[in-house]
Order: sequence, then structure tokens, then C-alpha cells
Amino acid sequence: MSFDLWYWPGIPGRGEFPRLVLEAAGAPYREMAQLPESQGGGMAAMQAFLDGERGRRIPFAPPFLVDGDVIISQAGVIAAYLGEKLGLAPDGEADRHFARSIAMTTADVVAEAHDVHHPVGAGLYYEDQKTEALRRAQEFRAERMPKFVGWYEELVAANGSGYLIGGRLTYADLGLFQLVEGLRYAFPRRMKAIEGEHPKVIALVETVRAHDRVSAYLKSERRQPFNENGIFRHYPELDAE
Amino acid sequence: MSFDLWYWPGIPGRGEFPRLVLEAAGAPYREMAQLPESQGGGMAAMQAFLDGERGRRIPFAPPFLVDGDVIISQAGVIAAYLGEKLGLAPDGEADRHFARSIAMTTADVVAEAHDVHHPVGAGLYYEDQKTEALRRAQEFRAERMPKFVGWYEELVAANGSGYLIGGRLTYADLGLFQLVEGLRYAFPRRMKAIEGEHPKVIALVETVRAHDRVSAYLKSERRQPFNENGIFRHYPELDAE
Repeated sequence: MSFDLWYWPGIPGRGEFPRLVLEAAGAPYREMAQLPESQGGGMAAMQAFLDGERGRRIPFAPPFLVDGDVIISQAGVIAAYLGEKLGLAPDGEADRHFARSIAMTTADVVAEAHDVHHPVGAGLYYEDQKTEALRRAQEFRAERMPKFVGWYEELVAANGSGYLIGGRLTYADLGLFQLVEGLRYAFPRRMKAIEGEHPKVIALVETVRAHDRVSAYLKSERRQPFNENGIFRHYPELDAE
Repeated sequence: MSFDLWYWPGIPGRGEFPRLVLEAAGAPYREMAQLPESQGGGMAAMQAFLDGERGRRIPFAPPFLVDGDVIISQAGVIAAYLGEKLGLAPDGEADRHFARSIAMTTADVVAEAHDVHHPVGAGLYYEDQKTEALRRAQEFRAERMPKFVGWYEELVAANGSGYLIGGRLTYADLGLFQLVEGLRYAFPRRMKAIEGEHPKVIALVETVRAHDRVSAYLKSERRQPFNENGIFRHYPELDAE
């Protein structure tokens, strides 16, 4: 039984959050948009889901996951679903619920990081909203980045195990890993300036990176590099200490 | 057993999404931030959770819900938790998962509606980002509103029961109700222009409004009006057909 992950080819984007859970769990999955039409994949097949031609559970946007009858969208929801199904969620009931809150907050940070380069709207080019982006980037670097990264630091400190929640690796930690890597790519100077104040987050990122399956995945061709078509974009003019 | 809901007093905001589920279910709950200190409520008590003084499950921001050991944040996550616990979620497993995707997409729309009046950042006043807001509002009205409302319309059409998912009222429908009411408050001219193309969404909003408990709640003093401190704000200069 294989999971079908649907996401835009060519960028890690929001698809990377469920993808990391699949990889860390060693679960079989198919990158449907990258497969040929003859195997049920491709962009037209992805569009068919979005156009409501594949049943009444219509995703608003990629990424979405098909697992038998289950069709779910939203990166954080998919990550939680997979984490809970594949042993990468906390054991206790209360911790399981809180992990969902963490994942959805991470999805919010990702959306904010995207809006730094698209503060007016996703329908316009960056170049057409650069003035607004410069202003939003200043606010994001000064106020939002320390606030968000500081919150994860408090969670790791309060939890005591080195992880965000519970006693072992969960999808919440995988999401934090991808977020920090994305912020490092997009805002290297700013991250360098604030990482020292968040040692527990940085240690957790290294724990995730050293995880056997994650480590193998990161070295594989399946791991797509960040680039300026994605969520996290490195525009030097938007970065500063 | 009562649920403790923590949210900023004075605005419906994101707190209204879990609140509507509690009200529609007829569940006992306390508005903690509105209660006096002597009953464990108030702003200082809310801040204590956010500061990590109430255990290792630290919410990033209100709203958050306390239900025994469970502490969860994120409006969509809380709404899903309550809906599943209180009989306002779909019955089938696949539908239950998809309902979560709907609720988190609704949370995204709410965030975008907020960012229309705060495109640079939540830390600045509207007046200090009005130029950017005028541009973002244009994009939101032209591109995002029809896309989002159109998606809900497709869901209701594909589902066939008059609801977004499953055969009866769920937290997903309650979230759509609040979203449409918020958009009507913030963008009355634009909503008037597009509502005719989305009759199923509008009919569902009226179904929710006519629900016995929801109807009683909406007439009560517990229902707080939209205002310009909240998520949905009516600034006439940001609205147009």
C-alpha cells in the first residue's frame, strides 16, 4: 500500500512537510505530479482533482495526499495524518492533540515567510511588489522571526527531551527542521544573528538531520533544493542582520 | 465538565470559530479571559499560559482551549477537536479527515482577510500601511475572494447534501458561516457582487443561521459584533464591487 503525494514539481515548497514524514517513516509513496500520465500522474491529473473531477473531496490546493478513500489537503493536516499513522506522532492523547497545534502554527510561519516576498498577492510577480516586500521583510525579520523561533525554543526547553513534544521524533520536529532550513536559505544573515539565542532549536534541527532515514533522504536526488520559485526565496535585499 | 476557551475579549476574531462549535453543540464552556481573576480568569492568567507558566504545552497565541490535560491552539485545530468530540463532525473516517482540511483552509482565508488590512505586519497600525493595504485589497477582492468562495460552492455542489461534507451540520459549515459573515462585514460591496454566483454557499449560511442553538446564540449577548480591532474590519476604502 503506497501513499500518493500530489505537489508541484521543481520546488520543495509546502509539499516538503508531508514528504519528510513519509521519508522519515520509510513509507512507500509516489510523487504523482512527477509521474507520467501512463501511470496516472502528471499535471493534468493533478488538476483533475482540483477541478472536482475525482470525487467530492476536492482539495483547495496542492499538496494533497491520496490514501485509499482518504483525500486530504493542507501541509500541516497531511503531516499530522501521516505522523499519527506511521508512528511519528506522540504517544499520549493530549500530546497528540498539541502536536497538531504545533504543525499548524508551523504552517502559519511558512505562509508568513511566503508573504514576505508576496505581500500584495500571490498573483503578482515579486518584482511588481518589491517596495512592499522590503517593508514587510523588515517587520518579519525584526518581530516575527525571533517570536516564532523563540516559541519553538521554549517548547523544547519545557518539554525536556530535546524534542518539541513527547519523548521521541515526531512530525512536529520534522516541520521545524524544514522551517529552519527554509529560513536559513531565505534569510541567512538574519538567522546567523539569532541562532545563538536558540540553541535547543538548533540542536533539534541537527538531531533531525542525523536521523538515519532523513539523512539518507537529504543526500538523495529526491530532496529538491530551495529556489526562487518556492515558498522560501533568497532575495538578498530582503535579508539583513 | 466544562471547556475553558481563552481568547481576547472584545472581538469575535479567531476565537469565534471554536466558540461557534461549542454553542452549536450546546456544550458548557467558560470564556476565561472574560472571567475575574478570582475564578482563574483574566488577561494575566491568559498570559501565564503563553509565557509557559502553565505547563509544557505552550500555545503560540490565542485562541486556545483547555480540556482537562488537553491544551490546544489554532482556531481550526480547536474547532476540529471540539467538532469530533461533540458530534459536529462527519461520521465516516475519510470525511472526518477531509473536514480537517476544510477547516484549516478556512483558517488560511481568515489570515488572508486579516492581511488585507495588515499587509506589512501585525505590529504596525493600519494607518501606517494603508498604501500597501489598498493594493492588497484589490488583489484580494479580484482574485482571492471568488477563488475561495467558489471552492466552497464546488464542495457543497459535489457533496449533494447542502453541507460541505457529510450529511449533516459539522464544524466545517460553522467555519464557513463565520467566514462569510466576516467577509460581508469587511467587504459588503464585493460580497454583494459575487454572492449571486454562489447560491449553495449562501443557502448553507442560512441553514447554519437557522440552526436552533446557533440562532439562539446569535441573538444572545455572548455573540460579539465585528469591529475594527478584529480580524475582519470594515474600511470602506478597501471595499469595492
